[in-house]
Amino acid sequence: MSDCTLKENAVLPFERPEYMQRIANVKRRMEAAGVDVLLISDPCNMNYLTGYDATSYYVHQMVALALEVEEPLWIGRQMDVACARFTTFLQGDNLRGYPESYIGVPDRHAMEFVALELQERGWNRGRIGVEMDAHFFTARCYQELRDGLPDAELVDATLLVNWVRIVKSPPEIASMRQAGAIAERAMNVAIESIEVGVRQCDVAAAIYAATVGGTAEFGGDMPEAPWMPSGERTAAPHLTWTDERYKPGEATNVELSGVRHRYTAALARTVILGAPAPKLKAMVPVAIDGLNAALDRARAGVSCHEVEAAWRAVAAANGIEKSSRIGYSIGIGYPGPSWNERTASLQPGDTTILEPNMTFHMIIGLWMDDWGFELSETFRVTDDGAPEVFSHVPREVFVKG
Amino acid sequence: MSDCTLKENAVLPFERPEYMQRIANVKRRMEAAGVDVLLISDPCNMNYLTGYDATSYYVHQMVALALEVEEPLWIGRQMDVACARFTTFLQGDNLRGYPESYIGVPDRHAMEFVALELQERGWNRGRIGVEMDAHFFTARCYQELRDGLPDAELVDATLLVNWVRIVKSPPEIASMRQAGAIAERAMNVAIESIEVGVRQCDVAAAIYAATVGGTAEFGGDMPEAPWMPSGERTAAPHLTWTDERYKPGEATNVELSGVRHRYTAALARTVILGAPAPKLKAMVPVAIDGLNAALDRARAGVSCHEVEAAWRAVAAANGIEKSSRIGYSIGIGYPGPSWNERTASLQPGDTTILEPNMTFHMIIGLWMDDWGFELSETFRVTDDGAPEVFSHVPREVFVKG
Repeated sequence: MSDCTLKENAVLPFERPEYMQRIANVKRRMEAAGVDVLLISDPCNMNYLTGYDATSYYVHQMVALALEVEEPLWIGRQMDVACARFTTFLQGDNLRGYPESYIGVPDRHAMEFVALELQERGWNRGRIGVEMDAHFFTARCYQELRDGLPDAELVDATLLVNWVRIVKSPPEIASMRQAGAIAERAMNVAIESIEVGVRQCDVAAAIYAATVGGTAEFGGDMPEAPWMPSGERTAAPHLTWTDERYKPGEATNVELSGVRHRYTAALARTVILGAPAPKLKAMVPVAIDGLNAALDRARAGVSCHEVEAAWRAVAAANGIEKSSRIGYSIGIGYPGPSWNERTASLQPGDTTILEPNMTFHMIIGLWMDDWGFELSETFRVTDDGAPEVFSHVPREVFVKG
Repeated sequence: MSDCTLKENAVLPFERPEYMQRIANVKRRMEAAGVDVLLISDPCNMNYLTGYDATSYYVHQMVALALEVEEPLWIGRQMDVACARFTTFLQGDNLRGYPESYIGVPDRHAMEFVALELQERGWNRGRIGVEMDAHFFTARCYQELRDGLPDAELVDATLLVNWVRIVKSPPEIASMRQAGAIAERAMNVAIESIEVGVRQCDVAAAIYAATVGGTAEFGGDMPEAPWMPSGERTAAPHLTWTDERYKPGEATNVELSGVRHRYTAALARTVILGAPAPKLKAMVPVAIDGLNAALDRARAGVSCHEVEAAWRAVAAANGIEKSSRIGYSIGIGYPGPSWNERTASLQPGDTTILEPNMTFHMIIGLWMDDWGFELSETFRVTDDGAPEVFSHVPREVFVKG
């Protein structure tokens, strides 16, 4: 990696000032919300604020950020302190491991240890923000913290960090561009590989290899599984693959991602092995026109609602109704799928105003009774014009054979 | 897939009687715990009881099992009802979707819908079990259910289903064997691919391709990311890869998995590009002897504590201390990493008695200051003798170049 070394051994994708800026932005929101200490459970948010990058979140871990100190505190399993040593910019005292005696037993819980650590620092009073609806912040985590911090008021700070993440810095945009290049490469491999008689799992293998291998200049990071249902299964959005062989006439919806430094660019296209069925054929130009119209509308100062309305107008003119949103803010991702930042959605009623360097995945996904279609782009809102799209694959349905 | 079709369109890896047996086993535990309705959030447990197999768990979803009815109820996002239609054995009325108006908004929550569905069925009274410490069952999920089900007593049923999963049926063992064959293939690819000058990401790509492609007879399913830290990073257990090139003398700890029908066989080996350093060289025979001793002890009727003690005796005789457990029950997995069933651990004080067809991942993982070593096997406890190991890769350190 052409990455910077912040301390002995640690290799991070960004320089220390980048992380300190993120922390300052989060602290401003904490002050506005009256939060003295913020407890962060979402692995994406942990990565954002500390660099921590290990797939260790199947055990409980936490980043604590107090207004009164400069750097966050990372708390995790003792053996994972080494992971934090190699991937965060945090110094020795800000890395704390709980012993193995908390692992694999029902009657002790890692959040007891977290509460004790907070007490030791005097962070057990005032208002403590917790991510009440973050993945991996379980109901029991909350109970243990409440019991272990009787002098604190626990308040909901779900998405507080996510709303900071929505506007990317120039180094983050650089990673998104690399992710987009990887997604483009992987999609080209998918389109080439899908052939009558080939097993779906072998195409999935080729997609993974392209995604993880990345380009000659930079490698790819751990991806989500591609979604790639075929045939009538294209009616369902979130299926992976089988080991069936592709059949003549079958359509496949490929929704994949490129990942660089955990930044994700998603990309969806439909590939058909033969002439498209009439219903699908009629839908294609509508989806393309609708996506183009909404993309063209996605400019700084416009609301998410208005962007979606541009698609909706094209769809309605063609008698098509789609109840689900057409996109969402995208950035750092960790599996179980989380490339969606869970903040702004391109959907009716979302009044979020687009700002430069917000990044979105816009997807026209149509899942009907026994068929479906997908077309998407990941893009950046620019200062003064049309969005910057991160992958360059023709915006069409790919008909083969 | 050579799989059975349970209803129109749905393709499941197992026959209906297999699922009904699982449900009966879970209901017995519900009765013993005085639980009338069990609400299941863990994606592995959902898959176990219904077949549901989609990477849609980034939005809230739930399986409800009531003592009074035969089949479970699946509740998820409206667009994912199609995923359930293709992957579960459940019939129309037992698949319920919540509308898109619950998505991407902070003031509505899918658990409100779940509570209403339970009310409609009269399941809003008595004792309702929830998985308080399951991934994806957030603190907010609990609050919404508590508020939406005022006449019910919510009780903790964490791991209730997991403890049923610990003993596998013959069809599950068949899937574990296939997973083991895939893991074996992927490890051989890893050992072959790691060479001085090759990028780590390109080896990761080869591992993914082997894992997902599977064998000529059966494909592989969505895997976890392999862990494969190199050089001094081998001191950390849960790191993936970089795009650095392998250097002469460098060690790599490869911990990967094969996955079939979501059943996971994990496998770890260390590969060194040159002569091992003295500390590592001294450790290797101890780890091998210790693993062999513990594996030999892993027989029906023996406790987890005793299995670990067999390793501990070998380690102590060689002056080695390892504070972390040497294994855990393994089976169905979904990313964020969860192949660990979170029930029995091979560690001091765990009194679980090994039974035939329990499956474990036993791993001698040593993570020191600036080096590390891993050696593992996934195995089945047999009726009357030594365990059945699922992958067949020589139990040694691989020294290359």
